[in-house]
Amino acid sequence: METPEWINQAPGIWSTVVGKPEDLTPLKVAGATPRLAALREMGEGEFPLDPRTITTESVSSRTVIRIPLDSEEAIFGLGLQFLKVNHRGRTRYLRVNSDPRQDTGETHAPVPFYVSSRGYGVLVDTARIVTIYCGSCVRRDTPNPPALKDRGRDPDWEPTPTSDAVEIVVPGEGVEVFVFAGPTPLEVVRRYNLFCGGGVIPPRWGLGFWHRVSLQYNHEQVHAESMEYRNRDFPCDVIGLEPGWHSKSYPCSYEWAEDRFPDPPRFAEKMAAEGFHINLWEHAYVSPEAKIHAELEPLSGSHTVWGGLVPDYTLPEAREILKAQHEGTHLAAGVSGYKIDECDGSELTGCSWMFPAHATFPSGHDGEQMRQVYGLLLQKMTTEIFRKHDRRTWGLVRASNAGACSFPYVLYSDLYDHREFVRALCNSSFSGLLWTPEVRSAATAEEWVRRMQVVCFSPLAMLNAWSTSTMPWSFPDVEPIVRKYLKLRMRLMPYFYSAFARYYFEGVPPFRAMALEVPACDLDDQYMAGDSMLVAPMFAGETSREVCLPEGVWFDFETGKRFEGGGTIRVFPGLETMPVFVREGGLIPMMPPLPHAPRKGERVPLEVRHYGNAPGRLDLFDDDGETFAYQRGDYRWRTLEVTVDSGGTRTGTMSEVEEDRESSYGEIAWMFT
Amino acid sequence: METPEWINQAPGIWSTVVGKPEDLTPLKVAGATPRLAALREMGEGEFPLDPRTITTESVSSRTVIRIPLDSEEAIFGLGLQFLKVNHRGRTRYLRVNSDPRQDTGETHAPVPFYVSSRGYGVLVDTARIVTIYCGSCVRRDTPNPPALKDRGRDPDWEPTPTSDAVEIVVPGEGVEVFVFAGPTPLEVVRRYNLFCGGGVIPPRWGLGFWHRVSLQYNHEQVHAESMEYRNRDFPCDVIGLEPGWHSKSYPCSYEWAEDRFPDPPRFAEKMAAEGFHINLWEHAYVSPEAKIHAELEPLSGSHTVWGGLVPDYTLPEAREILKAQHEGTHLAAGVSGYKIDECDGSELTGCSWMFPAHATFPSGHDGEQMRQVYGLLLQKMTTEIFRKHDRRTWGLVRASNAGACSFPYVLYSDLYDHREFVRALCNSSFSGLLWTPEVRSAATAEEWVRRMQVVCFSPLAMLNAWSTSTMPWSFPDVEPIVRKYLKLRMRLMPYFYSAFARYYFEGVPPFRAMALEVPACDLDDQYMAGDSMLVAPMFAGETSREVCLPEGVWFDFETGKRFEGGGTIRVFPGLETMPVFVREGGLIPMMPPLPHAPRKGERVPLEVRHYGNAPGRLDLFDDDGETFAYQRGDYRWRTLEVTVDSGGTRTGTMSEVEEDRESSYGEIAWMFT
Repeated sequence: METPEWINQAPGIWSTVVGKPEDLTPLKVAGATPRLAALREMGEGEFPLDPRTITTESVSSRTVIRIPLDSEEAIFGLGLQFLKVNHRGRTRYLRVNSDPRQDTGETHAPVPFYVSSRGYGVLVDTARIVTIYCGSCVRRDTPNPPALKDRGRDPDWEPTPTSDAVEIVVPGEGVEVFVFAGPTPLEVVRRYNLFCGGGVIPPRWGLGFWHRVSLQYNHEQVHAESMEYRNRDFPCDVIGLEPGWHSKSYPCSYEWAEDRFPDPPRFAEKMAAEGFHINLWEHAYVSPEAKIHAELEPLSGSHTVWGGLVPDYTLPEAREILKAQHEGTHLAAGVSGYKIDECDGSELTGCSWMFPAHATFPSGHDGEQMRQVYGLLLQKMTTEIFRKHDRRTWGLVRASNAGACSFPYVLYSDLYDHREFVRALCNSSFSGLLWTPEVRSAATAEEWVRRMQVVCFSPLAMLNAWSTSTMPWSFPDVEPIVRKYLKLRMRLMPYFYSAFARYYFEGVPPFRAMALEVPACDLDDQYMAGDSMLVAPMFAGETSREVCLPEGVWFDFETGKRFEGGGTIRVFPGLETMPVFVREGGLIPMMPPLPHAPRKGERVPLEVRHYGNAPGRLDLFDDDGETFAYQRGDYRWRTLEVTVDSGGTRTGTMSEVEEDRESSYGEIAWMFT
Repeated sequence: METPEWINQAPGIWSTVVGKPEDLTPLKVAGATPRLAALREMGEGEFPLDPRTITTESVSSRTVIRIPLDSEEAIFGLGLQFLKVNHRGRTRYLRVNSDPRQDTGETHAPVPFYVSSRGYGVLVDTARIVTIYCGSCVRRDTPNPPALKDRGRDPDWEPTPTSDAVEIVVPGEGVEVFVFAGPTPLEVVRRYNLFCGGGVIPPRWGLGFWHRVSLQYNHEQVHAESMEYRNRDFPCDVIGLEPGWHSKSYPCSYEWAEDRFPDPPRFAEKMAAEGFHINLWEHAYVSPEAKIHAELEPLSGSHTVWGGLVPDYTLPEAREILKAQHEGTHLAAGVSGYKIDECDGSELTGCSWMFPAHATFPSGHDGEQMRQVYGLLLQKMTTEIFRKHDRRTWGLVRASNAGACSFPYVLYSDLYDHREFVRALCNSSFSGLLWTPEVRSAATAEEWVRRMQVVCFSPLAMLNAWSTSTMPWSFPDVEPIVRKYLKLRMRLMPYFYSAFARYYFEGVPPFRAMALEVPACDLDDQYMAGDSMLVAPMFAGETSREVCLPEGVWFDFETGKRFEGGGTIRVFPGLETMPVFVREGGLIPMMPPLPHAPRKGERVPLEVRHYGNAPGRLDLFDDDGETFAYQRGDYRWRTLEVTVDSGGTRTGTMSEVEEDRESSYGEIAWMFT
């Protein structure tokens, strides 16, 4: 066993190269530039572990890294996990898998990065399938062996012994390992996100409501269904087309089905005139009938998926072929983004269609590596097409890995357990991922409402009706409640948009687990949204729930009712309400419930709510909302501030901007609760 | 890609060495001598595939073997699978795992051997975790690509494309692969079993009823509970002691708890006087308080399990330490066998306690290899202790692998789905495994009966009451039905015993899947028992079921009702009956329902049932029932034969044996149905 040397890579970030790492890694695929200035603002930090206690070893072509654990330490993260928040005591097999029904660690986006409740993080940058024993195996030579108990006599015998170390196992001869300082878990995550290029800011329209239409719709059916949102007074910004828009799908041609969409530019223009953006479903497997098939064939892997090519997108020439096709056929027609399906692959459960781990690719990489990073490759490639045209995009993807936080993609799943969806929303925040708890169907009106409430407080608020033909008003009894939440989503756009700006500039996840607010809190059914909101979803069948409020004073977002934090309260919301709490001094900027997001240059009035008697401040982000101008310095922070004088009178102010003509915000109204 | 040379190893069996195989393999661990004479009797057979179509390749430290598939071919076997019979179209990850809840291929006994419905078998002899793509991945260069369908238009689109090959992936630089000829699937299995030393014959008492007592019982409680079987007129042969018999358990001391069992030899003697054999629970992990701990410590792996050593039992010196301890402490006290628990390990699901794949062992093997063959090592080691004393044993084990058919061990599980238990009974027969669908508890009296009926037609009929304290009469309403089946188990002992003799001499599994009777039949809820019986279990909640009867004429075992085979019938048995059918001409030798199995030298009368108007014959096996004398030639076949004269009169005869004094069978009564 060896004790590696740790090299400082950025403020509060160190790495070590163990053995001989392979060339293909998630961070290299993502290829983001660390945001060093922002990291420097966080301070240098100290190496958060005793480096002498970290050991490495090579065992049968595996690289093993061992990192000690305190007895009370919790382990968070490891990607889009559906079944646990704290992984302490569990083994995590971080394989990309589309059907993560069992608590093995496999998931759409397994990220080999964990955050300790003690305030440090560890990233293993590999495209191999990593196994992380999160205190789930015990070495014989450990100084802290687990207590011995006799199962035949000891009533508190437990099936899992306590281990004093994490053991990380990477197939192959080497890997680069990164350690991130805190001191809090949130600061660990911020450093990780900033090191990976900072979080992404969606276009404003990305934060509107999304609807995906039936598989076989043509342009007229799409238009007619979309217009129902307008006619029934429900906001909607994005319409998603499912496989049937392709001339051939499963595998994909990427060409329009001419009978269904005879004039795509005119269709997109007509939709845009009504305020709708178009999102296209696709997967990566290229139909023999695709025009680009012949060109891509020599650049593809040894195995097919649904009879389609699996292009080797680690090769620039393969990427250029797809990018040119998409640019000419989709972007030129006015398409705003993609839903990139099935880059995760099912192989061991349910159906079997993915290329195998032993597939070979022209670049020399194998199927295991390719599958682990295929979601990243597709995100990066499609992002670049839009960036070339200085258009921001917002889309959906079903696989991801480390280093993805700068990509404008939100994960989704074919799973549908509501509690797991909320847990995934919590867990995504540890790993630089975004997740939508999309709504598809419901057994009851109650479930419909509860799902709609949650999705409106998530990175992407979507009704995915491709196979269900549901509409927001599908349960007529609760139509007013659903409308209320879709409009609330729209009204909160300035608040959520600013939260995403903090994701980009400071690495703070816009929606995040309680453990990033209160270290070691492993709650999986409530979460933070933006700076000041705590969201406590209700699940069908419940009439009340417990909510853990962190220290301080909290207010019910809707009623303004005051609660003392630092403990657990029980709330009894009706169906019309999902409990949301705002911390004292919190500022919530809201805009009118427009049918769709404001366009570039469009100005909206603001209503700013302030809660409690403490002064408050919020940095409101503003830019054109559509281009990458903000990355070229063209953006504005407007400081919203509430002061409280000695008599308890509250006064709100918003800082001016020099070029007032550029502001997206007009009149401001203050509401003091 | 290369096309390997196939070397004939035995009649109808060929192998090829791909790359550089590792030294530790299941066949080497099992170490059985192929039964060449029996194989020669089966004939040479022809290499069952076109050798030019089988290719091998090395991809990123993996060895890949590709074997073509016909479009209709079914794939059976791959060990103790609970969720599928035909694996065509699925990927099987053959990892030893104690908690196989998902259909991945992982199980207690994953055997890298499959049987094709076309009548050949393939074995990959490796201690690594093999992945077998059973027609679940498609090469781009295949001559038979799957039909292309458009999901957006084609209503018969399917999620899994058809592949024309099996692809076998073995980690590491090489492996030896075996091919077995048929021509039928049953002959493939017979060759496999004979190559692995032939099946095992239990001691007669092993085929009696088994009961396992509560975890914390002492010798008086054990005796009292056992005597209830005698007092209530239920047969019972074996009493199993659970962890509490150890002075320390979890991990194990292997020493008796003196307060509970102050005089083990006297206890065993007292039990033996009543006709009970004693079976001891143990696992492989050695308590720091075990007397043999110090000796074993330098011979153990890098990691502990429940704080116990994991001895490296690939080392002869480690084996000798345990064998001597067991011999002196258990066998000398009169113990008849073991239940070897938890050699499978849980790591990825539920609790985590197993040594990891990257554990290191003094022999140089790693945890992956050791875990894959640990069950085999323990079976072999404990078998040898009994063999040394010329005593047959019969026991339980929770992990196995290829080459295990000669070991006197039956697999079991903590799973408890009744349909899965029956499916496992079917599947075990493809892989040289035995399995007990043990009874533990039931939600209703109906379920209790249905489970008891099935377990009485299995390799080991057991009530495992260690945590439930159930007894066969726990549901008083159905006590007579349960008694009927426990007694039927006892009455069928001559029939089942002879079926096991065929397992040893001819490789025919005593309980076997329908696909071994009718190639390509993938039924998973009925099975063959011995030569002539077809068992069709009922499951709780059912009042009728379909039964597929192979070609020919069949008779209801109990009522004698006649059925034409070659199709499916529906039966409506009451709760008191599990449908069992006997093929025309079938002979079922039965003995009286004794309280326990006959001892060596004890003679029982026979009742032989014959069904239908066709002549019939059965070779009835006879030996001392307790020692390995039969392997030294000391056994007798008695031919039971029924002839039918031109008038339809049936006459039964039993061949004489020279040394009549040695026969276990006395008077014979014929019953013609």
